[in-house]
Amino acid sequence: MAKTNPGRFFEDYSVGDVITHAVPRTVSGGERALYHALYPARHALYSSDEFARACGLKASPIDDLAAFHVVFGKTVPDVSLNALANLGYAEGRWLRPVWPGDTLRSTSEVIGLKQNSNGKSGVVWVRTRGENQHGETVMEYVRWVMVRKRDAAVAAPDPVIPDLKPALAAADLVVPEGLDFSGYDFALAGETHRWGDYQPGEVIDHVDGVTVEEAEHMMATRLWQNTAKVHFDATLREDGRRLIYGGHVISMARALSFNGLANAQMIVGLNAGAHANPCYSGDTIRAWTEVLERAETPAPGVGALRLRLVATKGGEPFTLRGEDGKYLPHVLLDLDYWALIPM
Amino acid sequence: MAKTNPGRFFEDYSVGDVITHAVPRTVSGGERALYHALYPARHALYSSDEFARACGLKASPIDDLAAFHVVFGKTVPDVSLNALANLGYAEGRWLRPVWPGDTLRSTSEVIGLKQNSNGKSGVVWVRTRGENQHGETVMEYVRWVMVRKRDAAVAAPDPVIPDLKPALAAADLVVPEGLDFSGYDFALAGETHRWGDYQPGEVIDHVDGVTVEEAEHMMATRLWQNTAKVHFDATLREDGRRLIYGGHVISMARALSFNGLANAQMIVGLNAGAHANPCYSGDTIRAWTEVLERAETPAPGVGALRLRLVATKGGEPFTLRGEDGKYLPHVLLDLDYWALIPM
Amino acid sequence: MAKTNPGRFFEDYSVGDVITHAVPRTVSGGERALYHALYPARHALYSSDEFARACGLKASPIDDLAAFHVVFGKTVPDVSLNALANLGYAEGRWLRPVWPGDTLRSTSEVIGLKQNSNGKSGVVWVRTRGENQHGETVMEYVRWVMVRKRDAAVAAPDPVIPDLKPALAAADLVVPEGLDFSGYDFALAGETHRWGDYQPGEVIDHVDGVTVEEAEHMMATRLWQNTAKVHFDATLREDGRRLIYGGHVISMARALSFNGLANAQMIVGLNAGAHANPCYSGDTIRAWTEVLERAETPAPGVGALRLRLVATKGGEPFTLRGEDGKYLPHVLLDLDYWALIPM
Repeated sequence: MAKTNPGRFFEDYSVGDVITHAVPRTVSGGERALYHALYPARHALYSSDEFARACGLKASPIDDLAAFHVVFGKTVPDVSLNALANLGYAEGRWLRPVWPGDTLRSTSEVIGLKQNSNGKSGVVWVRTRGENQHGETVMEYVRWVMVRKRDAAVAAPDPVIPDLKPALAAADLVVPEGLDFSGYDFALAGETHRWGDYQPGEVIDHVDGVTVEEAEHMMATRLWQNTAKVHFDATLREDGRRLIYGGHVISMARALSFNGLANAQMIVGLNAGAHANPCYSGDTIRAWTEVLERAETPAPGVGALRLRLVATKGGEPFTLRGEDGKYLPHVLLDLDYWALIPM
Repeated sequence: MAKTNPGRFFEDYSVGDVITHAVPRTVSGGERALYHALYPARHALYSSDEFARACGLKASPIDDLAAFHVVFGKTVPDVSLNALANLGYAEGRWLRPVWPGDTLRSTSEVIGLKQNSNGKSGVVWVRTRGENQHGETVMEYVRWVMVRKRDAAVAAPDPVIPDLKPALAAADLVVPEGLDFSGYDFALAGETHRWGDYQPGEVIDHVDGVTVEEAEHMMATRLWQNTAKVHFDATLREDGRRLIYGGHVISMARALSFNGLANAQMIVGLNAGAHANPCYSGDTIRAWTEVLERAETPAPGVGALRLRLVATKGGEPFTLRGEDGKYLPHVLLDLDYWALIPM
Repeated sequence: MAKTNPGRFFEDYSVGDVITHAVPRTVSGGERALYHALYPARHALYSSDEFARACGLKASPIDDLAAFHVVFGKTVPDVSLNALANLGYAEGRWLRPVWPGDTLRSTSEVIGLKQNSNGKSGVVWVRTRGENQHGETVMEYVRWVMVRKRDAAVAAPDPVIPDLKPALAAADLVVPEGLDFSGYDFALAGETHRWGDYQPGEVIDHVDGVTVEEAEHMMATRLWQNTAKVHFDATLREDGRRLIYGGHVISMARALSFNGLANAQMIVGLNAGAHANPCYSGDTIRAWTEVLERAETPAPGVGALRLRLVATKGGEPFTLRGEDGKYLPHVLLDLDYWALIPM
């Protein structure tokens, strides 16, 4: 019997299955420091305990995307080891901050299955939950991936396509307990723009670019214990290139968006996301944002912005799709999320 | 007087000398996070405080190999600065876990000396001990290195060749106080295979590969304050290559062995080790393991496996030596160690 | 309205302005571990809590240069985003150690302005102060930069050139409260040379070299939240090279100086500094030191050395300037600082 994990194939999933993902992880100031070393992350709430306390939190949490990566990384051996493509995200919510010292674990429920017409693969939808050591859910999201079948002869399951929201409504968002932006220090945060300064339809060029290196994306991806081979093993492809984990691009683009969205402090919702084209070492990542929607929240001084964050490797700013409706080749990421910002 | 450290030469050692190595080091969650960023380390006991507590420990310790590297790194300026070759390891034992917040220091006793027949160098054996801030030994090992003589005219010392065990017996191993695998959570650990599932003679291909980069091995090696020039200075060799610290290969191979040995949680014994061939940036490290021996321990639910861990840079799996008895050129490491695993 | 920060231009500064820099930062054991991974830093006081306690401190502080980088990094968006050159440093003092858990913020006062004769740029002098969460100044320094004008037609301000000390006197230095080297452990520190062993005029070749990589300098520079584009974006220059942050060279050279100056534990004064030539990935950094001056301090067993630290990328040791008085092309850094060392 081979003792290594071959990963699951399409026929190994059934709707309703709940998978306990392995290797819980305790995070600390070490993960925070590495996040700052790997990404140009400057949102003050995640940089300073004092700033976070002035906003009603007990300390500076681990970056929301770091929490996402830890939760996501655990699912890779069970969900995407034999994936042909990562197709989408929906209904992602951050429900509680993750603090240094917390231990995270993940579970995924299979909520949809649909075999492809070629009979060789199918789409699997999972709803993943990350929990802390108190059994509280810290975040949840749905993603769907295209997975190979081990044996094309196995009969197709009855298709189940989950009914997913195209985007979370403002009422679906959870504002962390105690969050209060009424005394927010804009000078320390780095920009003066507040909720009311952003108009739906407005686009922001985040200006800066970062050329990415093999050592960095591998360190980042390992930090989240995501061990998908394509990110690490240069012998897998003829051109010797390693595919960069899509989450690395998400974090890089989000960090770059500080320049223009310094006050969009906390990510609370992930509506949708597409990894439009692959990213490789040597690519220079840039980002722009389109403001999609504004909403109020019940928390003092706290508003919400729905934002489309686009990462590119060059190309004309603010271009996304060609005439054929497909993403242009320079587009890396198209992410639709909700962030909290002072009113 | 030159103030820089020229290192010791063969004639500077006497049997019985005890060398206090400099630069004690406090470790924290920062070292743990970096270890996870540098290696695909996923053993749950070193990833989660909660998992470690469920196994009877007070928290998740610093990885056993990180402890080894810290202890080892301190010896480099005194033992291997003028070394021509790192010849072997023996009688390595981990005696106590290292916790975040601990401060480690090292001492080495010279236990053997033998001048080479060419009169220009000799072999030095040292027994190195790493201590924590309470003066407790956390680990110890013997290694021997070939060291240059400063002056070939100096008379050879009487040869002293220490009597070293070819391998530790199970009775030599120290199980950390309190360790209890009777309630071990195999789902969270990532694999179902337990002590009884491994048979002596069995070989396991760990499947994954990691292509290594200059920035990574230098960061790792510096983290352990190992400052041997060959790892950092590209001008030392005509081909501009930096030799990768052998310990980097050990940690990479051990981390890769998670896939097939996820439950071989703690390293408690180092029987032998050879750095068979040099490793350079751009090499893709793979690993396979041969099960050598099984043993019981007095701790509840805790068994021991003696394992041969082989790291390669490609080549045919499970091949080790050529017809001439020498390591094949693709073999990087041949390590013989004891690990603790649930029964 | 563009929401991104265009940086300040020369005409945006007035003498007496006090700029609050954004993004306060909490440091932890994570920053310490990364500092050790990025630089071959081995000064025992910054490596071991136990060693630091034996020297009268409550714990091992964050490296003085790490504190400098954090304080400096915050000033970049306000001071040097449109800088053409970083011209100098003066009157730098470390006033209090920075401990893990501290939160740092920076302010800068404009203390000098002088438009260049070309009318297109000018020199701005700022005195920057880094504060901890108690409002205590942890360090301060003056730097001056050449900054572009937005509009050459704007009238020149009255020139104000601050009166800066060519070097701090020993009496200007602040010895951390409680520091006591009377029981200093030279064996654990790594060298036997004390204050009296260093003679003004003496030069020390630090011997070791480190070849630097893109991933490393970018991780270091991001860790200090210094986001100047030239360090990250390979598309900015025709040759595709990224300019390495001058502070990376300072930290590398200081760490290399351990070999010969292991007991020059704490940096307390920065008299002057010049980034003589640019540094790029692939350069091999070396360092040498000239002893400039010795001074006593009131603290028990604590002396001070004024040192010139020179970083090079090869070239003949101990050479600095050509016949024309200009720095030779292999010189990267010329730094004049005060360090504390046991008597």
